[in-house]
Amino acid sequence: MKKLVQCVPNFSEGRDKEKIEKIIDAFRGKDGVKLLDYSFDKDHNRMVVTLVGEPKGIQASLVEAFGVAKKLIDMRKHTGQHPRMGAVDVCPFIPIKNMDVSECDELAKETAKLINEAHDYGFFFYEKSASASHRTNLAKLRKGEYEGMKEKTLEAKWLPDVGTFKEDTGITAIGARMPLIAFNVLLDTDNLDIATKISKNVRHINGGLRFVKGIGIDMPERGITQVSMNLTDYTKTPMYRVFELIKIEAKRYGVNVIGSELIGLAPMDAFIQTAEYYFGIENLDYNQALEKHLME
Amino acid sequence: MKKLVQCVPNFSEGRDKEKIEKIIDAFRGKDGVKLLDYSFDKDHNRMVVTLVGEPKGIQASLVEAFGVAKKLIDMRKHTGQHPRMGAVDVCPFIPIKNMDVSECDELAKETAKLINEAHDYGFFFYEKSASASHRTNLAKLRKGEYEGMKEKTLEAKWLPDVGTFKEDTGITAIGARMPLIAFNVLLDTDNLDIATKISKNVRHINGGLRFVKGIGIDMPERGITQVSMNLTDYTKTPMYRVFELIKIEAKRYGVNVIGSELIGLAPMDAFIQTAEYYFGIENLDYNQALEKHLME
Repeated sequence: MKKLVQCVPNFSEGRDKEKIEKIIDAFRGKDGVKLLDYSFDKDHNRMVVTLVGEPKGIQASLVEAFGVAKKLIDMRKHTGQHPRMGAVDVCPFIPIKNMDVSECDELAKETAKLINEAHDYGFFFYEKSASASHRTNLAKLRKGEYEGMKEKTLEAKWLPDVGTFKEDTGITAIGARMPLIAFNVLLDTDNLDIATKISKNVRHINGGLRFVKGIGIDMPERGITQVSMNLTDYTKTPMYRVFELIKIEAKRYGVNVIGSELIGLAPMDAFIQTAEYYFGIENLDYNQALEKHLME
Repeated sequence: MKKLVQCVPNFSEGRDKEKIEKIIDAFRGKDGVKLLDYSFDKDHNRMVVTLVGEPKGIQASLVEAFGVAKKLIDMRKHTGQHPRMGAVDVCPFIPIKNMDVSECDELAKETAKLINEAHDYGFFFYEKSASASHRTNLAKLRKGEYEGMKEKTLEAKWLPDVGTFKEDTGITAIGARMPLIAFNVLLDTDNLDIATKISKNVRHINGGLRFVKGIGIDMPERGITQVSMNLTDYTKTPMYRVFELIKIEAKRYGVNVIGSELIGLAPMDAFIQTAEYYFGIENLDYNQALEKHLME
């Protein structure tokens, strides 16, 4: 059974198209690597690349791309609105098929070592690969950004997991995580306070569901608001549970859920899981989705 | 964009394993053809083969398999419980990816001509390929079975669409149809009359939903009953509509829906459609299922 992993490296270059294409060339036409998307932004001066492929193919293309990035990106000269700490800022590995999180964790750590040997990058292990619980969260790791990172990585609490902070490439967060689902639930109220309260009721940090991050967001053009969420592990906190709980919380404020938005990609299993719940399908094997047989 | 078609030829041989393997060999290791499944039954003396692949690959393997079947199956000697009229009894083409029903219709008709030229088979076009509305339904076409088919195919109403009835191979129904979803909804009553009434309320033939065939079935071991259905075009009569309507009909009898069963494979889009309805997802593009990008 062929293993498939998704990888979403973020590069600190979103302005120079020539440099962008040179980085992307490391992912083009490589055995076992499919480039699904790359998008970049001038204000952020950042590029997000989405890859899917076989572990060894993805790994080899990353070693090459980190090498190209080292030649083209100098963090001493980097400016942009998005928080960042490295030439390759973050590099998550996500299990897609015939792989679990622990295999992605191994792959991430091995890849970090190979890139360190080839191009002398420094790494933090983050998310499911974090070496301590205070090092799980990317925002906490990145606090202080590139400019504060040299000093921060000298503290015992923030020592790099592989290599050291470098003036040119900074430091990179690498690790395994579950696929994110960006799911927004729409409310028939223009009162942002209510959307914010509901987001707090359902999100993990305030006592809600374990794998939900969320905020209230205003949608002034439509005169409504939304609970905008990242579901960080849909296998354990499924979409239906989040959706039904928001309906229940909304009742307290006399507000109704009027629909939702799905942003970007979601794994097929999330859709199958939804049908399984709403239809109460007994003994459903997720391989009963026809297309799963076509992907072998 | 690669086109993918599913084909489910039914062969009138379910007893002789040597013959079965010789027929299946026509589908093994062929370019653009994936053999998903073959299952056979002694009582029925019949084999159902499930193929997915590219139109030209599927077509070529079918021409070969019909040739093998002509050598190995003689309908004059065939007995079995399942109704049948030909050595290859029925051969449906189902659109899977980057194809629609009209392309499957063309493929089915072209394939029938090629097989007729190569091996002198006779064909009825059925389902979406039927040449008249009274010839759509397989059960009606097959009525009288092999034994009555020579005479039946002399009537103007039942003239074959390609070739003629043959003593050895009988006649084959070939055509395009949508993927079937076998979906059973479970009721908390042991009263089969109620299950039967509900099945009549929702099925097409008695005034229900356009693409639903259904019957009531007893499940004595669990002390419950079910509405057992084939959804013959889930794109037009989606699963959620059938499920919610059965809940509404069940109320009349003081009965509750307690779950469901999905038998065999269902297309991924049927699951996505279900999530779209229950979450009210706005502007959902079915390509937002991650795995769709992996199938390119």
